Amino acid sequence: MIRAEIITIGDEILYGQITDTNTQWISAELDKIGIKTVRKSSVGDSEEAILDIFTESSKRADVVIVTGGLGPTKDDITKKTFCKYFNSELIDHPQAQIDVIAYFQKRNFVLSETNKSQYQLPSNATYIQNTMGTAPGMWFDFEGTIYVSLPGVPYEMKGLMTLSILPKLQEHFKTPVIFHKVIRTIGIGESTLAELIDVWEDALPDNIKLAYLPSMGSVRLRLTGFGEDLKTIEKEVEEQFNRVFPTIKEYVYGYGNEELEEVIGRTLTQKEQTISVAESCTGGYLGHQFTKVSGSSAYFMGGVLAYDNSVKISQLNVNPETLKKHGAVSEETIREMAENVRKKLGTTYGLATSGIAGPNGGTPEKPVGTIWIAIATETETITKKLTLGGFREQNIHLTAMNILNILRKIIG
Amino acid sequence: MIRAEIITIGDEILYGQITDTNTQWISAELDKIGIKTVRKSSVGDSEEAILDIFTESSKRADVVIVTGGLGPTKDDITKKTFCKYFNSELIDHPQAQIDVIAYFQKRNFVLSETNKSQYQLPSNATYIQNTMGTAPGMWFDFEGTIYVSLPGVPYEMKGLMTLSILPKLQEHFKTPVIFHKVIRTIGIGESTLAELIDVWEDALPDNIKLAYLPSMGSVRLRLTGFGEDLKTIEKEVEEQFNRVFPTIKEYVYGYGNEELEEVIGRTLTQKEQTISVAESCTGGYLGHQFTKVSGSSAYFMGGVLAYDNSVKISQLNVNPETLKKHGAVSEETIREMAENVRKKLGTTYGLATSGIAGPNGGTPEKPVGTIWIAIATETETITKKLTLGGFREQNIHLTAMNILNILRKIIG
Repeated sequence: MIRAEIITIGDEILYGQITDTNTQWISAELDKIGIKTVRKSSVGDSEEAILDIFTESSKRADVVIVTGGLGPTKDDITKKTFCKYFNSELIDHPQAQIDVIAYFQKRNFVLSETNKSQYQLPSNATYIQNTMGTAPGMWFDFEGTIYVSLPGVPYEMKGLMTLSILPKLQEHFKTPVIFHKVIRTIGIGESTLAELIDVWEDALPDNIKLAYLPSMGSVRLRLTGFGEDLKTIEKEVEEQFNRVFPTIKEYVYGYGNEELEEVIGRTLTQKEQTISVAESCTGGYLGHQFTKVSGSSAYFMGGVLAYDNSVKISQLNVNPETLKKHGAVSEETIREMAENVRKKLGTTYGLATSGIAGPNGGTPEKPVGTIWIAIATETETITKKLTLGGFREQNIHLTAMNILNILRKIIG
Repeated sequence: MIRAEIITIGDEILYGQITDTNTQWISAELDKIGIKTVRKSSVGDSEEAILDIFTESSKRADVVIVTGGLGPTKDDITKKTFCKYFNSELIDHPQAQIDVIAYFQKRNFVLSETNKSQYQLPSNATYIQNTMGTAPGMWFDFEGTIYVSLPGVPYEMKGLMTLSILPKLQEHFKTPVIFHKVIRTIGIGESTLAELIDVWEDALPDNIKLAYLPSMGSVRLRLTGFGEDLKTIEKEVEEQFNRVFPTIKEYVYGYGNEELEEVIGRTLTQKEQTISVAESCTGGYLGHQFTKVSGSSAYFMGGVLAYDNSVKISQLNVNPETLKKHGAVSEETIREMAENVRKKLGTTYGLATSGIAGPNGGTPEKPVGTIWIAIATETETITKKLTLGGFREQNIHLTAMNILNILRKIIG
């Protein structure tokens, strides 16, 4: 087993001033190539703390991945500290110099004296080009441990990892050939799903592992096959998947990295179908789920944010009698909202939400978390009542997930 | 200086399967009471790894805060490992037993044999009641170091920290009296802001520290005063704030924990004014910024998601000639959108967005990131052209932040 440690350097992360998204991403990517993270650490911009963690991690890990502290300012001390640790010195790296100068020229930026430090690297570093920024990546092979140094800016770090570091690690450590299949499910909780497939899971061969990756409202299953030949492993993983698929079929919405709204978008595009939304309690969040996807203008026409009841009447032609008799959070109202937005915008489907997102506004008959959703099609209108919890943000998100899941089933 | 370490236990975090939001929150809260985090670590569900990190951190820190691994299942080994580390044993804790049984009874859940382990604590633990879940908090005082054990579920952890642990730490360590004032700014970058106030910052007295807390589109300034008497410190911090305020006044939108959309919502509520939105490129995200705030129904009436041009015409009465002549991303179109949504929904203000969010759809004249925003009032319509970058998600967010900032200035 190849063991990795991930080290984040920077006071801002240590004191909780900024969010560290790098560490999770790096560990997930290492996991995919069969390298196990054994520890993650954050230390501040302190030479002593950095030297300590380098020494400690070299005893536990085969590869140490370090992010942050590569900027040109005084408090960025990663490179200097690497020099001290390796007993090397900072030198102008010819290729880094060419690349950094070109980076500034291309953007018409002035290369200040401070910025010149960006092309100084420890003399024992293998230079890894960063096409998205000025802080080079670095690779060190020191006393049997590999050290990788990456900038803390997430898209620069991800670019360097994907293009250079991950392939280099696979080559260096001769990691086993690995094949992943990620199966994305919705509408079933992690433990229920686990019970449903436990016989199959227990019978998996030793070279195929299963991981549950839950997020709010959905669970991903990841099958990972290890071996020597990609074609063989891929076949084995697919065979296992085919065995379990009939059991979980109704919950599977997609594979790999595709989000539910992307899968739906692709199907709608293929079928040349369109949608519109009438949102009350989701207040724009449902529309955003569709429109955050690039290319959504092919199927998302628009909609009405009918937050206030007056807007439900004036912009969606909901019958005032319906609102008076049944209230805004009712099957009768949601049905009119979905059918009317579909008609008004001339779309294949009309989606509607109305409920009590909370934390206030609940009543004994309709407590916080009571939410109605509906989808109108040419021939019918499907309605569903949700009984969710007390958290506003969660209620809004789960409402969107639920209606997306119904839409998925309708469009097939 | 009181030094803290934060340890997260769990394979799911180590392998990047779930996001750890606890660590950042804990370190930020410790920072507020004057306790400095010196290291953060994540280790897996392995006894050896947990014992190692306990031993190491006790050498560096006065307080070690541990989250996770407190569930009733086999892979949750934090309590057992604490026993081994402290040379103590798991015993039924009488008060924990009463609380856990009451928790299950209240919810009509069956207390299984497995769940009974929830009220077993190491014999040297001080029990900290968790009213939001079944995993108790624990406090240990061992060989001069304080160990705190908390469940990994974020809202349970936050409840325990806020209600019990933070006050207990302040008492135990007799931390200095601290007063914070957080000043929230928008419309100015971190480095420009720093240059603007550097003379003032350099002249701050030794017992008042300044921190920059940037997030996408806004920067918070935090002034922290240390001393012995709260009233005195508060007065000193307010005096310093009053000195800098005239310089940064136009960028300040609020104080403390209040988000921009909450500040705006409060002002609108006070003035009994209302808003509506006409969203093209933001596709619901702007509406969501308002409606994610509890109580927004007092001022947010609703709006139109006019994603497709046909919806701009049919639902917002935008003149087809305007669209034909100037395009959807133009000052002329955005003006009609804002004015018409205001009129249609009868609100005090009408907000509109239209632009090329990307990554596709740009042209040489209107590259990706070209976005028009507008706010119509009774007497005028303010329009603004934004020139943003190439990232869709960022463009959508910054568009919303920009229009919120204009609205803030209008409502005063």
